[in-house]
Amino acid sequence: MKKIIYSLSLLILLMACGNQEVASEIKVSNIDELNTAIKTCQAGDNIVLSNGIWNDVQIKFRGKGTKDKPITLKAETEGKVTIEGQSYLKFGGEYLVVEGLHFKNGYSPSSAVIDFKISHKDTLDEIASHCKITNCVIEDFNKPKRDKSDLWVQFWGRHNELSNCYIAGKTNRGPTVRVSIEGIESINNYHQIVNNHFGPRPVKGGPSGETIQLGNSYTSMSPSHTMVSNNLFEECNGEVEVISSKTNFNEFRNNVFYKSEGSLVTRHGNYCTIDGNYFIGDGENENYGGIRIINTGHWVTNNYFYNLKGKSFRSPLAVMNGIPKSPLNRYNQVTDVVVAYNTYVNCSSPWQFGVGTNIAQADVLPKSEIRSARAIRTTVANNIVYNEKGLEAIVVENDKADGVLFKNNVVNNQGVAFENFNKGIVEASLGLKKISDNISLPTGVSNEIEAYNGYGFNDIENDLFGNSRKDNASIGAAFSVDVSNPNILDKSKYGTTWFSNEIKDKNPVTHNAANAEELQTKIDEANNGDIIIINRGKHVLSKSLVINKKITIKTIDKSKVILYFTGKENTPAFQLHPKGFLTLDNIYLKGNATNYAFASLIENMSNHFGLTVLNSELSNFNYVLKAYKETFAERITFENTIISNCENGIELSEETNDKGDYNTEYLTINNCDFNNVKANVIDYYRGGYDESTIGGNLLVTNSEFTNCGAKEKNKILLNHRGIVNVNIANNTFKNNAVEFVSILWGAKNNIESDNSLSNSGQIKTEENLVMKLMY
Amino acid sequence: MKKIIYSLSLLILLMACGNQEVASEIKVSNIDELNTAIKTCQAGDNIVLSNGIWNDVQIKFRGKGTKDKPITLKAETEGKVTIEGQSYLKFGGEYLVVEGLHFKNGYSPSSAVIDFKISHKDTLDEIASHCKITNCVIEDFNKPKRDKSDLWVQFWGRHNELSNCYIAGKTNRGPTVRVSIEGIESINNYHQIVNNHFGPRPVKGGPSGETIQLGNSYTSMSPSHTMVSNNLFEECNGEVEVISSKTNFNEFRNNVFYKSEGSLVTRHGNYCTIDGNYFIGDGENENYGGIRIINTGHWVTNNYFYNLKGKSFRSPLAVMNGIPKSPLNRYNQVTDVVVAYNTYVNCSSPWQFGVGTNIAQADVLPKSEIRSARAIRTTVANNIVYNEKGLEAIVVENDKADGVLFKNNVVNNQGVAFENFNKGIVEASLGLKKISDNISLPTGVSNEIEAYNGYGFNDIENDLFGNSRKDNASIGAAFSVDVSNPNILDKSKYGTTWFSNEIKDKNPVTHNAANAEELQTKIDEANNGDIIIINRGKHVLSKSLVINKKITIKTIDKSKVILYFTGKENTPAFQLHPKGFLTLDNIYLKGNATNYAFASLIENMSNHFGLTVLNSELSNFNYVLKAYKETFAERITFENTIISNCENGIELSEETNDKGDYNTEYLTINNCDFNNVKANVIDYYRGGYDESTIGGNLLVTNSEFTNCGAKEKNKILLNHRGIVNVNIANNTFKNNAVEFVSILWGAKNNIESDNSLSNSGQIKTEENLVMKLMY
Repeated sequence: MKKIIYSLSLLILLMACGNQEVASEIKVSNIDELNTAIKTCQAGDNIVLSNGIWNDVQIKFRGKGTKDKPITLKAETEGKVTIEGQSYLKFGGEYLVVEGLHFKNGYSPSSAVIDFKISHKDTLDEIASHCKITNCVIEDFNKPKRDKSDLWVQFWGRHNELSNCYIAGKTNRGPTVRVSIEGIESINNYHQIVNNHFGPRPVKGGPSGETIQLGNSYTSMSPSHTMVSNNLFEECNGEVEVISSKTNFNEFRNNVFYKSEGSLVTRHGNYCTIDGNYFIGDGENENYGGIRIINTGHWVTNNYFYNLKGKSFRSPLAVMNGIPKSPLNRYNQVTDVVVAYNTYVNCSSPWQFGVGTNIAQADVLPKSEIRSARAIRTTVANNIVYNEKGLEAIVVENDKADGVLFKNNVVNNQGVAFENFNKGIVEASLGLKKISDNISLPTGVSNEIEAYNGYGFNDIENDLFGNSRKDNASIGAAFSVDVSNPNILDKSKYGTTWFSNEIKDKNPVTHNAANAEELQTKIDEANNGDIIIINRGKHVLSKSLVINKKITIKTIDKSKVILYFTGKENTPAFQLHPKGFLTLDNIYLKGNATNYAFASLIENMSNHFGLTVLNSELSNFNYVLKAYKETFAERITFENTIISNCENGIELSEETNDKGDYNTEYLTINNCDFNNVKANVIDYYRGGYDESTIGGNLLVTNSEFTNCGAKEKNKILLNHRGIVNVNIANNTFKNNAVEFVSILWGAKNNIESDNSLSNSGQIKTEENLVMKLMY
Repeated sequence: MKKIIYSLSLLILLMACGNQEVASEIKVSNIDELNTAIKTCQAGDNIVLSNGIWNDVQIKFRGKGTKDKPITLKAETEGKVTIEGQSYLKFGGEYLVVEGLHFKNGYSPSSAVIDFKISHKDTLDEIASHCKITNCVIEDFNKPKRDKSDLWVQFWGRHNELSNCYIAGKTNRGPTVRVSIEGIESINNYHQIVNNHFGPRPVKGGPSGETIQLGNSYTSMSPSHTMVSNNLFEECNGEVEVISSKTNFNEFRNNVFYKSEGSLVTRHGNYCTIDGNYFIGDGENENYGGIRIINTGHWVTNNYFYNLKGKSFRSPLAVMNGIPKSPLNRYNQVTDVVVAYNTYVNCSSPWQFGVGTNIAQADVLPKSEIRSARAIRTTVANNIVYNEKGLEAIVVENDKADGVLFKNNVVNNQGVAFENFNKGIVEASLGLKKISDNISLPTGVSNEIEAYNGYGFNDIENDLFGNSRKDNASIGAAFSVDVSNPNILDKSKYGTTWFSNEIKDKNPVTHNAANAEELQTKIDEANNGDIIIINRGKHVLSKSLVINKKITIKTIDKSKVILYFTGKENTPAFQLHPKGFLTLDNIYLKGNATNYAFASLIENMSNHFGLTVLNSELSNFNYVLKAYKETFAERITFENTIISNCENGIELSEETNDKGDYNTEYLTINNCDFNNVKANVIDYYRGGYDESTIGGNLLVTNSEFTNCGAKEKNKILLNHRGIVNVNIANNTFKNNAVEFVSILWGAKNNIESDNSLSNSGQIKTEENLVMKLMY
C-alpha cells in the first residue's frame, strides 16, 4: 500500500512538474522505492531515505545531475539512517551527492562499500564524475575474514569527493580508501578527500592496511592530481603506511596525523606536494611516523613534526635508497626532491637517508631487491630542528647522503656536536614558544640565517599557517611565532556534523558469579570494561565461555578457587570472539589434557581479540592458546603466571601463506614459569619477505622454562621465525630437550641478554634469513 | 689593433647608450672579441659574427635577455659563418638567440655541439631558458671515433627552441638531438623542436643512433611536455628509432617521416600525443617504420601512412608486449592507449600487436626480460585501411590482441577475408583519390560507417589537414578528400633560409692512370663519383692507395692487367678513409701473402666507407678485407669475383665489446669463388642482446667455397654470430675442413636453401642464441 501511495505521489509530482526546473523531494522507505526513485530521478532531485535500519541494501545510484542541480540521496535525519547487513553504495553518473548515512553492523558483499563505478561484464562500466559522499560514517564494516580484501571507499572517474566523513575500524585486508586510476576515464582525476576524520584503524598484522592508497604500482606512471587535505588521521595504525601515494601529482595539505603508527609514504609515483601537515607524536611511541620518500620530484614543505620518536622507516623524514633500474613494483631511486621550510621539535631522528639499504643482504636476496641507489639531486633547505635534548646526529646516514644538498638549515642541539654537511646545517641557540599542547615553535631564528632561495622556491608562497612568505626570508614551517592556537585536534573541525568518536569514561561495574554456570550469564550481562569475580570453590566449566566484549574475570584468592574445564576435545575454556578482550587475573585454570585454555573463533573473526593473563596458573591443556588463521590480537600478555603440564603452549603461527601477515602484534611473556610444556612453547610466525611491514614483537623476560620442548619437532624452544622485534632477556632455561632455545634474526631487531641456559641447547643468531619473496 | 678599435667602438657605443633602451649591434671577428661582447652584452643587443671560418671556437653564450629584447648572436650573412675544428656553442641564461651559423669540418670536444647549459664543477650550472638556435646548419660534425658519444643538440632548462635548422650526417654514437630533464630546472620544459629539416643520418650499425631522444629511462617518470612539430625527417636511418620518446606528455604533430629507416617510438614515458604526422615509404624498403608503442596513455590520431612495407618492430603501428613489473629500463606494458582516426594506404602490415613477444626464449633469457604482458585497455577506432592488394591479416597478433577494443574501423581489403575482432573492423568498398605523389586518400567512406565516440574523443578537434571535426562523424585521418596538395616534401618549408641538401646530378669524369704511380695522383685529382681506368700492364704498387671519396677503379681487360701490391706487412693495397667509397671492377689484384687487399683506417674513421668488388680476382693476401674497430660500411659487396690463396678472408668482427655494434650493415657475396682461404673466410659479428637493434644483413648466394677454413679455430666456415638477417642460398661447399658451414640463429631471420655440401661439415640451426645482456 505504502508503495502504491509512493508511486502515485511520485507520478503526481512528475505530472505537476511540466516545468523541469522544479526539483522534487522523493521520500523512500525501502530498497524498491529507492530503486524506483533512482530510476526516475532528474537533475535537482532529492531522494530522502526514511530514518531507520536499512538492511542488505545494495544501492546503485545512477543519474545525471548538473553542477548547479545535483541529484541528492540523503538521510531523513543525518545519522538516523543506518546501512547494515550486506550492503554497498555505488555511484554511476554525474553530479550525484550522498549525505548523512551511517554504515555499520555489516559489510560489503562486493569489493567496496562505496564505489564510484558501477561495473558491467559485457558493456562499458558506468563511471562516476563530479560525485560526492559527505557527512557519512563507515564504522567497523568489516568482511568476516581478514584475508578477504575490500575497500571502504573506492574512487574511479574524475572530480569525485569524499568529505566530512568519519571512517574507522577497518581490520580486514585492503586500504580503507583507494583512488583507482586504471583507464583513461580516471586519470587527471582531481578527486577531493577533504575534511574527513579517519578514526582508529587497528594494527592489521601484515601489509595492505593503509588508510589511503592512491593508485597502485601498475598505474604509478599516471597523473592523478588527487587532493588530500584538512583531514584528521587519528590512530591510523593499520600498517606502516597511513597514506600510500602511488601515482603522480598528488597533493597532501594541512592534514593532521595524530598518534598514527605509520607514515605518509610516496611509495610509487612522483611529483607529490606535501605541504603544511602536522605530525604529532607522544614522545614515547616509536611507531608514529612522518614522511617516507621514494621516487622523484616530491616537495616536502611547511610541515610540522612534534614529539616523534620514530626511527628508520618511521623517521619524521625517511628518504629511502632505491633499487637501480627497479622493477615497476619495487623501489625507484629518490631524485629531484625538495625538503624545505619544515620544523622538527623534539624528534628522535628527524632526518634519515639511505633508509632501507640492504646491500649487506646481497647473499640472500636477488639483485633486483638490493636497494643501493642513494638519493640524488635532492635539496634540504631552510628547515629548523629543535631538540630539547641534543642528538648524536641530525642526519642519520644509513647510506651516504652525498647526493643531497643541505642549505641553510638551523638546529638547536643543546651544544651537542653533529656533522654539518658543508655547513648546510648550523647550530643556533633557539627558544621555544608553546602555541598549544601539541605545537611549540622555535623562536629566535630569523636573525640567525636567511632562507636559501633554491630553484622554484618562490613557488612556496605561504607558510604552515597560510601566511604569505613573500618578502620574508625566514626559515622553518612558520615564519612568525605570533600565531594563535590552530586547534588542530578539535574534532568538530573534521568529519560529520552528527557523529563523535569521543567516548566518556565509565567506571567499570563489578559482577559476582557464584559458579561456573553463572559465568556466561554474567558475561552476557556485563558492559564493556566490567569486572566479574568468581566466588570461592571448585567450579566445573563444561562449555566454552564466549568472550565478545572487554571483560576482566578474576578471583580474590586464587588458592581458594579452581576452574576445571571439562569441555570437549579441542574446544577452549574461553572462546575469544571479535572484539573479545579478556583479562584473566588470579585464576587457577585446569583442563582435561585434550582441550584448550583459550582460542579464537575458527572463522568469522571480523574484528580483533585480546588476551591478558595475570597472576594465574594454567595446566593440563592440549593448547594454552590457539589463534586460528585470519585472527588477530593486538596484544597477548602473560605475566606472573605458571603454565605447566601442557601438550602445547602459545600457538600464533597460522599465517603460513607467507604474505607478511601474523597473528599478534605484541606477545609479552614476563615473569612466568613454563614447566613440562611439550611443544610449541611459544610459536609465533610471520612469513614472506616484506621489508616495509615492520611487525611482530616478542618480549620474553624474567621467566623460567623447565623440562619443555620434549616433543618439539624442529628442536627449537621459542619459535619466532620472521618476527622483526624479539627480545629475550633475564630468563632461565633448564633441562629443555632442544637444540636451540632461540634462533635470532641478526639483520633485524632480534636480541637476547642475561639468559641462563643449562642443558637446554643454545641461542643462535643468523644474520640473514632466507624468506619467500612476496613481490 | 683590430681588437683595440673594437674595444674602443664598443666603449663609445656603451657610453653613448646612457639610455638602456637603445640596443647595440656588436660586430666581432674573433673569439676574444666574441667573448668580450658576450661578457658585456645586455638585453636587446645583437652580436654579429663576421663572415668567414671560425676555427676551434668554444662559445659560452651567457646573458640575460628579455622576452621583448632577446640577446642575439648571429652571422654577418646567414650561412657565411662556418664554425669548424674543435668547436661548440653553449647557452647559459635567458632569451638568447643564435642564428645563421654553419657547423662543419669539425667536431665538439665536449659532450655536445649545441648545449643549453654551461656546466660547472663546484657551483651550480648555468641552465638556459627561453633560448633559441635557429636558421643554422650542423653537418657531418662527427667525433673521429664512432664509440665516442656526443649529442649535436642537447636541451636543458625550459622553453628552449631548435627551429628551422638543417642537421645531417651524424655517424658517431649518440642521438642527434636529446632533451635532458634531470633536475627540477628541466622538467615541464615545453621545448620546441619545430620546422627543422633532419637530413640523412646514415645507418649507425648498432644502437644509440636516434635522431631525437627525449629523456632517458632514468627520467622516464618526469613530465617533459616537449613539442616536436612540422619537421621533415629525411632518410634518418641511424637506428630503429628515429624518435625515441622517453618522458611524459610529449607531442609529435605534423611531422613528415620520409624514407626513414626507423620509427617514432614511445620507448619510455607515457601520455604522448602523436597527431597529424605523415609516414611515407617507397613501397619496397621494409626498414621504413611507423609508430611503435610501449607504455601507457598515448594517443595516436590523424596520422597518415603510405606505402610502408615494414613489419614487426617496423610496422606502421607496432604495439609491443611489455615485461610484467618491468625494470625501469626495459618494457612496460601498453595500457590506456588510443589509436583513432588514422589512415593507412598500401601498407604491408598496418597493425601489429604483441610485437617483441619472446615467451619462446624463456630458456635463454632471465624472467625480467620476457615480454609477455599484452596491451590492455587500448582502443583502436575510426581508422581506415586501404589495400590495393588484399592482406591476409589486417591485425597481426604476435600475441593475442584480446585487451584491445576495435571499433568502427573500415578496411578495403579487395575482398580478401580477415579477422574482424567482434566486427570492430569491417570491409568496405572504397576508392582512392590522389592528392600528391605521396598522398592518396580513400574515398567513399563516410556513408559506410559513423565514427565511434570513445571517452575523450571529443578532444580530437581537427583532422590531418587542420579541419574541424566538430559535427562531423566521419572516420580516417581526413574527413574530406577535397583537399589541396599539402606539399609535404617541399624542402623549402623546413630548415634554414639559405641551405639546401639537394645536389645536382653530375656526369662522372673518366681518368686514365698509366701506371701504379699515377694511380694516387689521379685519385686525388678526381671528383666524387669519377672513374679511373688503369692502363694495360703489370703494375707494382708499393704503397697503399688512399681512398677518401667515391671512386671507381677499373680495367678494360682484366687479363691484360695485373696489380701487384708489394706494400708492407699488414698494410692494404686500398686504404679506405672516411667517406671513401671504392668500386673495384675487373681487376686482378695480387698481394705478397703478408699484406691486405683492403682495409679501413685503424682509427679516426669519423665517417663511413664502402666497398664494391666486381668481376675481379684477389689472391695471395693475409686479409682480403680488414675492418678495424669503430669503422662502418653501409654496404660491402663482392660479386663475380674469385678470392684465392689467402690466409684470411673478409674480416668484419671488431665490435667485440658486445654493445650491439657491428661493422657493416649489408655484406653481400654473390657468384664468387673462394678457394684456399684458410681462416675467417667470412667473419661478421654482432654481440650483445639488444632486441631493438635489428641489424646486420648477410647474403651469400651462388658462390663456391673450396678447400677453405683449414685454419679456422672454431671450425665454422661462415661466421656470422649475432647477425639478425642471414640468407645462404644456392652455394656449393666442397672439401672445406670445418665442422659447420654455418650455424644459423633460428629465432631470428637466418635461413638457408639449396646449398650443396660435400666434405664440408653441415649447416646447423640453433633456435636461441645465448648472448650477453646489454642492459
